[in-house]
Amino acid sequence: MSVSQQVFLRDAMRRLNLTRDIFATRIGVKRRALDTWLLPEGSQEFRSMPEVVTRFVTEIVENDSLLQKYAQSAQSGPLRDRIAYQGKHQLLSVDQFSRESVEELFRVADLMQPIARRQKVSRVLEGAVLGNLFFEASTRTRVSFGAAFCRLGGSVCDTTGFTFSSMAKGESIYDTSRVMSGYVDAMVIRHPEKGSVAEFAEATNIPVVNGGDGPGEHPSQALLDLYTILTEFSRLGKLLDGAHIALVGDLKYGRTVHSLIKLLALYRGLTFTLVSPRGLEMPDYILEQTGRLGHTIEQTNSLAEGLKGADVIYATRVQKERFVGEEVEGYTADFQVNKAMVDQCCGPDVIVMHPLPRDSREGAHDLSVDLNHDSRLAIFRQTDNGIPVRMAIFAVLLGVEGLVQHSLRDVTWSPPSHLGPDDSVFHGLD
Amino acid sequence: MSVSQQVFLRDAMRRLNLTRDIFATRIGVKRRALDTWLLPEGSQEFRSMPEVVTRFVTEIVENDSLLQKYAQSAQSGPLRDRIAYQGKHQLLSVDQFSRESVEELFRVADLMQPIARRQKVSRVLEGAVLGNLFFEASTRTRVSFGAAFCRLGGSVCDTTGFTFSSMAKGESIYDTSRVMSGYVDAMVIRHPEKGSVAEFAEATNIPVVNGGDGPGEHPSQALLDLYTILTEFSRLGKLLDGAHIALVGDLKYGRTVHSLIKLLALYRGLTFTLVSPRGLEMPDYILEQTGRLGHTIEQTNSLAEGLKGADVIYATRVQKERFVGEEVEGYTADFQVNKAMVDQCCGPDVIVMHPLPRDSREGAHDLSVDLNHDSRLAIFRQTDNGIPVRMAIFAVLLGVEGLVQHSLRDVTWSPPSHLGPDDSVFHGLD
Amino acid sequence: MSVSQQVFLRDAMRRLNLTRDIFATRIGVKRRALDTWLLPEGSQEFRSMPEVVTRFVTEIVENDSLLQKYAQSAQSGPLRDRIAYQGKHQLLSVDQFSRESVEELFRVADLMQPIARRQKVSRVLEGAVLGNLFFEASTRTRVSFGAAFCRLGGSVCDTTGFTFSSMAKGESIYDTSRVMSGYVDAMVIRHPEKGSVAEFAEATNIPVVNGGDGPGEHPSQALLDLYTILTEFSRLGKLLDGAHIALVGDLKYGRTVHSLIKLLALYRGLTFTLVSPRGLEMPDYILEQTGRLGHTIEQTNSLAEGLKGADVIYATRVQKERFVGEEVEGYTADFQVNKAMVDQCCGPDVIVMHPLPRDSREGAHDLSVDLNHDSRLAIFRQTDNGIPVRMAIFAVLLGVEGLVQHSLRDVTWSPPSHLGPDDSVFHGLD
Repeated sequence: MSVSQQVFLRDAMRRLNLTRDIFATRIGVKRRALDTWLLPEGSQEFRSMPEVVTRFVTEIVENDSLLQKYAQSAQSGPLRDRIAYQGKHQLLSVDQFSRESVEELFRVADLMQPIARRQKVSRVLEGAVLGNLFFEASTRTRVSFGAAFCRLGGSVCDTTGFTFSSMAKGESIYDTSRVMSGYVDAMVIRHPEKGSVAEFAEATNIPVVNGGDGPGEHPSQALLDLYTILTEFSRLGKLLDGAHIALVGDLKYGRTVHSLIKLLALYRGLTFTLVSPRGLEMPDYILEQTGRLGHTIEQTNSLAEGLKGADVIYATRVQKERFVGEEVEGYTADFQVNKAMVDQCCGPDVIVMHPLPRDSREGAHDLSVDLNHDSRLAIFRQTDNGIPVRMAIFAVLLGVEGLVQHSLRDVTWSPPSHLGPDDSVFHGLD
Repeated sequence: MSVSQQVFLRDAMRRLNLTRDIFATRIGVKRRALDTWLLPEGSQEFRSMPEVVTRFVTEIVENDSLLQKYAQSAQSGPLRDRIAYQGKHQLLSVDQFSRESVEELFRVADLMQPIARRQKVSRVLEGAVLGNLFFEASTRTRVSFGAAFCRLGGSVCDTTGFTFSSMAKGESIYDTSRVMSGYVDAMVIRHPEKGSVAEFAEATNIPVVNGGDGPGEHPSQALLDLYTILTEFSRLGKLLDGAHIALVGDLKYGRTVHSLIKLLALYRGLTFTLVSPRGLEMPDYILEQTGRLGHTIEQTNSLAEGLKGADVIYATRVQKERFVGEEVEGYTADFQVNKAMVDQCCGPDVIVMHPLPRDSREGAHDLSVDLNHDSRLAIFRQTDNGIPVRMAIFAVLLGVEGLVQHSLRDVTWSPPSHLGPDDSVFHGLD
Repeated sequence: MSVSQQVFLRDAMRRLNLTRDIFATRIGVKRRALDTWLLPEGSQEFRSMPEVVTRFVTEIVENDSLLQKYAQSAQSGPLRDRIAYQGKHQLLSVDQFSRESVEELFRVADLMQPIARRQKVSRVLEGAVLGNLFFEASTRTRVSFGAAFCRLGGSVCDTTGFTFSSMAKGESIYDTSRVMSGYVDAMVIRHPEKGSVAEFAEATNIPVVNGGDGPGEHPSQALLDLYTILTEFSRLGKLLDGAHIALVGDLKYGRTVHSLIKLLALYRGLTFTLVSPRGLEMPDYILEQTGRLGHTIEQTNSLAEGLKGADVIYATRVQKERFVGEEVEGYTADFQVNKAMVDQCCGPDVIVMHPLPRDSREGAHDLSVDLNHDSRLAIFRQTDNGIPVRMAIFAVLLGVEGLVQHSLRDVTWSPPSHLGPDDSVFHGLD
């Protein structure tokens, strides 16, 4: 097998859309055995899967994909062509994805995990240069994109700050974009104005990634959020179809939740509970769009009610800086997602997410730090996933995803076994 | 042949200073055949040149260079020694170049084209570190130098912004320069004060490149401008000797045109028409210097008159921010180079250039966007040329130009066939 | 021998703590012969050491280290474990070092010298990413760390400026640190608040280096200062034990001297003369601590008195910006270390150091520029040493120091023989 057993099996379960339990039943093995095969190679309880199982799973998947192929004959060719934006290899919006293509992107992200976890190094993009153009400060996003490109072997040229010197002199986005295209091989652009990144994209044929265009979109964030949910559910033996997602906080201005709900809506039969202070409700057009796709939507101003029975709590920050002079009516301590609330409303396998940054100042009512040592808090597993997902985006847009597997070599240095002192250990099931 | 057929032939024509037509006649082949030999390898209409032609051209060039060698016995040793600044491998001014040495630099730039066009990757400077010190913001220039260094395999440490923290504490340029020399292998310096870059250069023995010292010089810009003119002329089958160049805009403060005219003056029998608003005329000392070298200079305030019959229109921005409170008398819409004006005054093979940024705001009278789809607009071919020219500068100053050819390997990713949606396709003749 | 003869011998002398003269006597050879063996390979007067001497020295060193091993049985395992900070591979304070471990770090720095001097290139950390987080501007320190990481083959993501966008939105250091840990493999952090870097370090398991936390520590500066003193003394044939060190300037707020004196105090029988304006004296707790370790301390307000007979003059800048409104009583021209003063008070083998930047403005009374051409001025040898020392810190914390030697290959480019026009040439004895 050219890919690891773990990647092979995860991929199979994802393609077949089966939980671990059902998958184990489908191939006639004990769930316990399956779990040991899914451990990282080299971990103590890892077991090799018998050859016959490999063949069996391969056949099931192939038959299934044959059926899917007939069903969706439109799907073919490289992924970057199928998710293209106006015929170009650019990522502007989550609208570019179908369930099929988003899962295909995530299979590439899975391939990146050994690199993101510092077990392997790749230089597949050696010689390529990224223009990381941040017209609005966003250190974490900038570094996440930059580090992802570096981990593929490329180099990064950064620009930060609110002004681009030449644009201050009256240069058009058209000129700026075309000029930069002669210097770099791909651009990530963050800009405070909605639509501006699309304007950049229009003026060039090189890959452009929207790193956030003000109230517009921030597709890589929504993608890493969905990837996190799927990965966590895979660990927990859950399916996303039919799951219950609670979205909490500013649902009106929070572009993150707008994009995320669109991606989640690609799945089947979800229940969304939307918990927001009065005046910060999810816009109607998104509610309608999501409802039309057959999902259940419940709106509430009561956090306890909204969280009840949720599989995922997705909390967001109320950006008080948006409301200078205005009152955010009803945004009180009752809106804080904290340990007591999670214990009271949810089971032991709920996951708690947040796009970060969270406001940890006194009286901010943002996601509480009292969950920091709780394994249900997935916020750092979520940010960690930014690297493999952004690596996958670059690899796909530049057309090198097929070269990654063979480019891997061992890291020379010795990284810590866990990145954070409070990182949860899931008995190898991550 | 160790170099590509295209590079070989271009080099030959440039050394012999012959147009395509005359070169074809000289070696006794049809112009059409020569054109197919000059196409990039792998393009559909590319043809291999017969071995006998290779030998013939080699002999012609060698005889010619033998003659030149006798004529200019002073010229010998590595290029970086011949263009040295006060005995050091530093690039401070266009005054360091002769016609011979500038053309030798451009042959190195030609070698860089497969890298700049993302067909090849080189790691020849792997391990080297560039200090890209911008004491004045200039994103495009900074990224252009940085990307050029990365494409040679090196790493870049950037500093941006108007203050260098230690200099604010009273540190001298001498100290800053010498300290940085212990950290990096070459420095690009942009600084708002004339002469400051020379002060940096004096305090170190490592290569320093002047990235613009206020009203002083910006030699890499003038070099890429000249390289663009020569490359475009080569495509058009024109010679620079005897050509007609129109310079338009702020010719008083625009250091770009001052440096460019000095470089152009290394050629023979040029005609310059200088078109500027009253008060922004080219300084007298440059006029005298250029005149003494046998070139024809005409000054006018009428754009239509100045452009008539030009081979090159070089437009520049009137930096209105320089004239706070002052009037720029006569700087009206009549000074705008636009499609109608170009159609009216020039032929189909004129090229329109601009150092960029151009001011595309309403009422700016800068180079019009209505030429964006016109193949005569060379401004983006011009900025694209910033990469190979800056790569050549680094390679020559660091003494690795001889290692580039053998360091090339194929790119792994798939770049777009054209960088910009409006890029002109010259039937393979670029 | 896998290491160069020069490194081997220097290492032996340092381990045995012997001057060149005594070492030559110990192994029964002429001092002159020893000097030629200590020259860089390839230099004209370099001689190969007879094999029998190699064996003899190896045996002496091994016997000595055997004795030391019995004496200090606690010391074992990789260096990074022995200098660990709260069990982690992080560098927060000079307090983490013993004389043994600091000298072991410097042997790694010696290994880095061929890279720092641009004779060799290493890619041992290829694929690793450094987060160079400067919450306070300090261009030279940032570039020094960045270039050091690049020279090991890694990539660098910088953040500069006084605000980290997400922290402005109320994000805790805990969150910021843990998030960055998912992106990068090591962090250098500079922050204006004392203790903040420790807070960063607590929230992550990846290597963190304190790049200066306000009035707190800046351990890499103290380490490169000590490394410089030892290297200069090795050249001069001096031992640090028993040496006379004069510290001049702001000894109250200057964290540099606080850390340096702690490291120096690891040696035996030093004499410190502390010269400061009234009110800027060294804090009492440091005086007591240093005195308890058996060192002699003399305080004076007279520069001439303090410098008399010193082996090292370590001058520091009085940061006048700290004293807005306040008077710095007695900080007059009499405090300026200049050529006349050094000639008057010290011998030809004193070395003059400064952490830089020095204030070269008129009336600043900082270290005079009239010593720039004087070989006793070691300030640029000192900053140059920032590269090998910081490379050693990264290599040790990431656990790759054992891989460096075999990763070396020749540089491709041709660096200048001396970095600065005023660099002293010590007849190969550097």
